[in-house]
Amino acid sequence: MKTLEQALEAIPTPDLAAAREAQARLDAKTKPPGSLGRLEELACALAAIRGTADLELPVKALVVMAGDHGVAEEGVSAFPQEVTGQMVLNFVRGGAGVNVLGRLAGARVVVVDMGVKAPLPADPAIRSVRVAPGTRNLARGPAMTRAEATRALEAGVAIADELARDGVTLVGLGEMGIANTTPASALVAAYLGLAPEEVTGRGTGIDDATHRRKVAVIRRAVELAAPDAADPLGTLASLGGLELAGLAGLVIGCAARRVPVLMDGFISTAAALAATRVAPACAYALLASHMSVEPGHRAALAALDRRPLLDLGLRLGEGTGGALAMHLVEASVRVLREMATFASAGVSGKA
Amino acid sequence: MKTLEQALEAIPTPDLAAAREAQARLDAKTKPPGSLGRLEELACALAAIRGTADLELPVKALVVMAGDHGVAEEGVSAFPQEVTGQMVLNFVRGGAGVNVLGRLAGARVVVVDMGVKAPLPADPAIRSVRVAPGTRNLARGPAMTRAEATRALEAGVAIADELARDGVTLVGLGEMGIANTTPASALVAAYLGLAPEEVTGRGTGIDDATHRRKVAVIRRAVELAAPDAADPLGTLASLGGLELAGLAGLVIGCAARRVPVLMDGFISTAAALAATRVAPACAYALLASHMSVEPGHRAALAALDRRPLLDLGLRLGEGTGGALAMHLVEASVRVLREMATFASAGVSGKA
Repeated sequence: MKTLEQALEAIPTPDLAAAREAQARLDAKTKPPGSLGRLEELACALAAIRGTADLELPVKALVVMAGDHGVAEEGVSAFPQEVTGQMVLNFVRGGAGVNVLGRLAGARVVVVDMGVKAPLPADPAIRSVRVAPGTRNLARGPAMTRAEATRALEAGVAIADELARDGVTLVGLGEMGIANTTPASALVAAYLGLAPEEVTGRGTGIDDATHRRKVAVIRRAVELAAPDAADPLGTLASLGGLELAGLAGLVIGCAARRVPVLMDGFISTAAALAATRVAPACAYALLASHMSVEPGHRAALAALDRRPLLDLGLRLGEGTGGALAMHLVEASVRVLREMATFASAGVSGKA
Repeated sequence: MKTLEQALEAIPTPDLAAAREAQARLDAKTKPPGSLGRLEELACALAAIRGTADLELPVKALVVMAGDHGVAEEGVSAFPQEVTGQMVLNFVRGGAGVNVLGRLAGARVVVVDMGVKAPLPADPAIRSVRVAPGTRNLARGPAMTRAEATRALEAGVAIADELARDGVTLVGLGEMGIANTTPASALVAAYLGLAPEEVTGRGTGIDDATHRRKVAVIRRAVELAAPDAADPLGTLASLGGLELAGLAGLVIGCAARRVPVLMDGFISTAAALAATRVAPACAYALLASHMSVEPGHRAALAALDRRPLLDLGLRLGEGTGGALAMHLVEASVRVLREMATFASAGVSGKA
């Protein structure tokens, strides 16, 4: 399934019969019907995505895609651009938040260089895609060419394919890219027709002046891009980032393989939104892990019709929210697999 | 620490210096300050409770206390009373929700018969306290004598002592008792001076007529009990349950031993509220795991000044919410212990 076209054609529909079967099994468990709330919803959603109520314990991967952003030169981030590459090395050494929470979740962490500006040392633990050494400045023109965006998308599809062949059945989206709340805000504004100030937050912690500059940059970028609803890939190329396009491809590839995808915070949700604009059918595979404090996140989740599982005031990214939510996904599968039924446990039902 | 008096005297104050030290260490980690939100708050809260920023990975226990309730004869529950004992056997065999989520959390499940009506088979996996074969009907008089309530409290203190000696450093509260949302609602109404209809919900799923009956029963019970703010133990005896008093004792015992306690849903939070009325100093050890759909839960949590970590529409009890939240507690400790610092990872700080 190498090309984007092939992935788009392979996306199945959710298996609603499997979801109903999962709910019927849950209703026979020793608990008041529905009393495990969103864990029950989650088990049914997983059954619909996987195409079976016989869910196996999830085999988990967190895919952390890194990329740099030309727009960093506009001074829109609290951190210097070199941090992107430094954090990639931190991921490889296991010291970052996503590593700690990924270990706890029992998830492998796949680190992908989609286009960090400064070349990274060759390391088998870094998957090097490097479509370009970062994007161009979206405030002055398209961040990527259509060809670059397509290559990034297809790299994501290829990684999804590999993971699925390798037995992975649950993928969390992660990202690293200094300044990447700017392209994420621009994409969400463009796809949803919202004003930049409605979707632009504080990122890693910028002050008021930087925030005003960031909003102005995003407004200019969206005007320059002149988004056309009939050309979602064009919008992604103009306003996106390499790691955002890569994650969008990952979503499409996972959807083609019936692999559920946990979105993390604002950036990865913006990437998932882009995926659903390029390939609407992929939306069935998306799960929302947490509600970030970024204002655009709420708008993107509402557009995707997803309610997050967690609300912990996280704003780190990297896939940390998805890593935490993997525990809830596993919990829902274990409830479906392991709980006794009223009949098997000899427990009386409702009077 | 056998008696209640001794436990009350042993409760320490939270270690605010340890909490500040934990926050300082978190601020040096490779992430924007505060970006792990409530995980950071949680790590600091744990440091304050444990009395050190050098937190060890939690050793976890879920204590599920079971008891029957004379008020069940008023027809306030959707399930027949025999289910209490049947569920205890389900806990012992590992088939209940709390078993499944406890295994996932890596927590031992301690099952305590505080006073199930029908005698249970002797089983080393059931800790038999059996203060009485269930409470009396609180709609017609005191549910327990003061002596019974004190024995139940002291049994809880003794279990906390044993667990702490055994190395347990994180306790989740769990309960089973058909009709026990009725005493829980009565206790919350009495301690907080709220009207019964404000704190009375649907329990395991009752219809409108049963709900009206339940509210009337609770109103009558609170009037009969004539709660006196100067005698919180008297209120607990009049309106509580054996498992509620046992859990209140467990909270007091854990607080005396600097062991953090995860409340679960409405019942266990009502028990924790009772504990803080009997022994106000124990409140520092309480953590709220989730927001239940029971209306009295919100009121009890507000009175305890705790915000729950999860909001998943759970209403099963048993300790299931606490079991799920243990993952977040462990995550917060791992972040504090395992994440690299800017210095150790060679990552640049804010520009």
